[in-house]
Amino acid sequence: MKAAILIVGNEILSGRTQDVNIKFIADRLALRGIPVAEVRIVRDEEKAVVDAVRTLSDTHDYVFSTGGIGPTHDDITAECMAKAFNTELVINPEAEKLLSAYYAAKFIGMSEGRLRMARIPVGATLLDNPVSAAPGFKIRNVYVMAGVPSIMQGMFIGFENQLARGKAQLSDTISCVVRESEIALEMEEIQKHHPEVEIGSYPIMGPSPSLSLVLRSVDEKKLKAATAQILTMVKKIDAEAVVTYQRPPQ
Amino acid sequence: MKAAILIVGNEILSGRTQDVNIKFIADRLALRGIPVAEVRIVRDEEKAVVDAVRTLSDTHDYVFSTGGIGPTHDDITAECMAKAFNTELVINPEAEKLLSAYYAAKFIGMSEGRLRMARIPVGATLLDNPVSAAPGFKIRNVYVMAGVPSIMQGMFIGFENQLARGKAQLSDTISCVVRESEIALEMEEIQKHHPEVEIGSYPIMGPSPSLSLVLRSVDEKKLKAATAQILTMVKKIDAEAVVTYQRPPQ
Repeated sequence: MKAAILIVGNEILSGRTQDVNIKFIADRLALRGIPVAEVRIVRDEEKAVVDAVRTLSDTHDYVFSTGGIGPTHDDITAECMAKAFNTELVINPEAEKLLSAYYAAKFIGMSEGRLRMARIPVGATLLDNPVSAAPGFKIRNVYVMAGVPSIMQGMFIGFENQLARGKAQLSDTISCVVRESEIALEMEEIQKHHPEVEIGSYPIMGPSPSLSLVLRSVDEKKLKAATAQILTMVKKIDAEAVVTYQRPPQ
Repeated sequence: MKAAILIVGNEILSGRTQDVNIKFIADRLALRGIPVAEVRIVRDEEKAVVDAVRTLSDTHDYVFSTGGIGPTHDDITAECMAKAFNTELVINPEAEKLLSAYYAAKFIGMSEGRLRMARIPVGATLLDNPVSAAPGFKIRNVYVMAGVPSIMQGMFIGFENQLARGKAQLSDTISCVVRESEIALEMEEIQKHHPEVEIGSYPIMGPSPSLSLVLRSVDEKKLKAATAQILTMVKKIDAEAVVTYQRPPQ
C-alpha cells in the first residue's frame, strides 16, 4: 500500500509560504501504516494539476491533494479533478445545504460567490469541513482538501478512519556523536544483512558531528536485531549513544 | 525560464523531518527572477530518483536537487545522477583533494568511507561546500546539493551568481478583513482584464475572516493598475485594507 501527496499552490512554489501540509499528512498516514511514496507540488494551472493527479492516482492506492478549492478564480482544483476523471463539475445540493446553513447561522445570505464552494465533480463524495463548512471531496482514490492548514487538518482527521490500515512502521532512532564517514562501510554491511529493515543516516550540523540513525521495519524482531548490531558498532566510537523507540498505537 | 526542485529523502516522506529546503531555494530563485514550476519529493530508490531527474531535467531550464550525497549506503543520489545521464561515477581527484585537506586540518586521515564523498559523475563540475568540504556537483542543468539545510544553503549561495537572471517578479500584497466569497466574482473580472498580472487569494484563519491578496507581475505599470483596481474594490468592504510592496533588488 502506498500514497502520494499533491500540493496545488503557486504560494508554495514562489517561496511565499512554508508548506506544513506534507509533514502533517505524512505523520498521520504513518500512524495508519500507509507510507507516502511521492509528493508533487504543482502550479495552479489546469494541465499541471490534471496530469499530476492522473499519474499519481494511477500509480498509488491513495492520493491526498491540498489547495485550490476555495471560491476565487485561482481555485481550479475542483475543475481539474472533474477533468482528470472525465466527469462534470456541478453544484452539489448537499454541499449547497451545508454552506447555506453555515452562513445562515452567521446571518449572511448565500451568493453566487459562496455557491462556488458547492461545485463538486459528479460521482464524488463530500469530505466534512469542521472549520468553515465548505466541503472537500473524494473522487476515485483522491482525497481533495483545502490548502489552509487548520482546515486541511480538520478534514483529514474527519475521514482518516475510513482509510485502510497498513502494517505500522516501527522505528528506532540511535542518537550519537559520530561522523557518518566513520561508520559508513560497516553500516552498509549491516544493512545488507537486514534487508527488511530500512536504515537511514541523518547528520546534524553543530559543534560536534552528531548523527541520527533511523531504523524502520514492520517487524519488531528484525528491527531489534538490526538496532542491536548498529548500536554495538556505534558504541565503539561513542559509548554514550542512546536509542529512542517509536511504536505507533495499534 | 523555469526551474524544478527535486528532494530526495525518505525522512521527508515519512513525516520525520519538516522540509525547509524548498522555501529557501524558491525564495532565492525568486530574487533572480527564476520561477519554480514544480517540486517532486521522492524516496531514496534508484528508479524513483532516475525517472524524476530525467523528466524534470528535460522539461525545465534548471533542476535543483537536495539530499542523498553523503557517504552512507542510503546516499544514492550521485549514482542515480550518473545513471540518469548515462555516465560513470568515479572518484574525482579534485573532490578527493578537498576532502583530504579538510580532514588533514582536523588531524583526521582519509578512509574508504570518507572517499565515498568524492564519487562524482564523469562530466560533472563541483559545487563548493563551505560548511563540511564534501562537494556537490552540477551535471547538465542539474545542481546536486546536500540535504542538510545549512550545507545546502552554503552550496546554493556559492553558485547562485552563475545562474541566468530572469525578469524579476514584482509583487503587491493587499491585507484586508474580507471573506473570499464576497469578492470572488468581482476579482475574477479584474483578473480577466489583467492577464499579465497573477492574482492569488489566500485566506488566513482567525477570529475574523482576513485575506491576503497577492498580485505578481514582471511589469510595474500593469501591476500597479491591477492593484489599484483590487484595492478600490476591497476598500468598499474594509476601508482599512493595506498594501505592502515587494521589489527584489536589481
